[in-house]
Amino acid sequence: MPRFEVHARLLEDCHSLGRFGLSHVLLHRNATLPWFILVPEVGAGVTELHELDRAQGRLLAGEVQLVARFVKERLGARKINTAAIGNIVAQLHVHVVGRDPEDPCWPGVVWGRLPDGPAWPAARLGAIWSELRRWRVDNE
Amino acid sequence: MPRFEVHARLLEDCHSLGRFGLSHVLLHRNATLPWFILVPEVGAGVTELHELDRAQGRLLAGEVQLVARFVKERLGARKINTAAIGNIVAQLHVHVVGRDPEDPCWPGVVWGRLPDGPAWPAARLGAIWSELRRWRVDNE
Repeated sequence: MPRFEVHARLLEDCHSLGRFGLSHVLLHRNATLPWFILVPEVGAGVTELHELDRAQGRLLAGEVQLVARFVKERLGARKINTAAIGNIVAQLHVHVVGRDPEDPCWPGVVWGRLPDGPAWPAARLGAIWSELRRWRVDNE
Repeated sequence: MPRFEVHARLLEDCHSLGRFGLSHVLLHRNATLPWFILVPEVGAGVTELHELDRAQGRLLAGEVQLVARFVKERLGARKINTAAIGNIVAQLHVHVVGRDPEDPCWPGVVWGRLPDGPAWPAARLGAIWSELRRWRVDNE
């Protein structure tokens, strides 16, 4: 089986933070709001959530839930937007986006609409990944 | 406990087709594409997927999956877009949208962007709900 690779377009848009049990954890480069993308390491033929087998589906749901709670409870987002879209990049990936009534897209969605914004400082990226790993250990 | 009611804004935008084990099944009035919305009958305080308890989370995931497969395999959609957003209507609800490269929003998302379109013929609404119920019996 060929080595799994996160799609180049996702890596162009996002920092790759690391990996959970099933998913690669990405963070969108636009730091206007905390926009995570989880890319489960599954077969290339799987492009829809309903094509995951039961075990994969539960693992992914658990990882999405973990990130969602982290974004809300630790990063202070007021609302979570979760979505599997995949119209542009077919490789299965799930967006977990922290939203706030003060953000520039509210109450609309971010996809295709988020204006350019600041980059994440490198130190902040490392800190977020450390906090998220700790959060995972404490909450699984 | 007060009787559960689907939020008025959702009922304004959608036809109410019926109910599954956990969720009310709505279909957006704009028939440009098959846009289902599932509203799980849970406590009013639950506005995020990660606030569902484990049993509710699995039931909802199963119902979402059932509708997604129906939209793709029976209604002929090429791609499914699944999302829990809730920035406008806080009541927890999950969108299951059938997409096609020929639809007017492709490859963008539909939320806030779908142009006005035709209504569903009444007979088609009844037929979709009958088919979906049969699909559920055959696939659960």
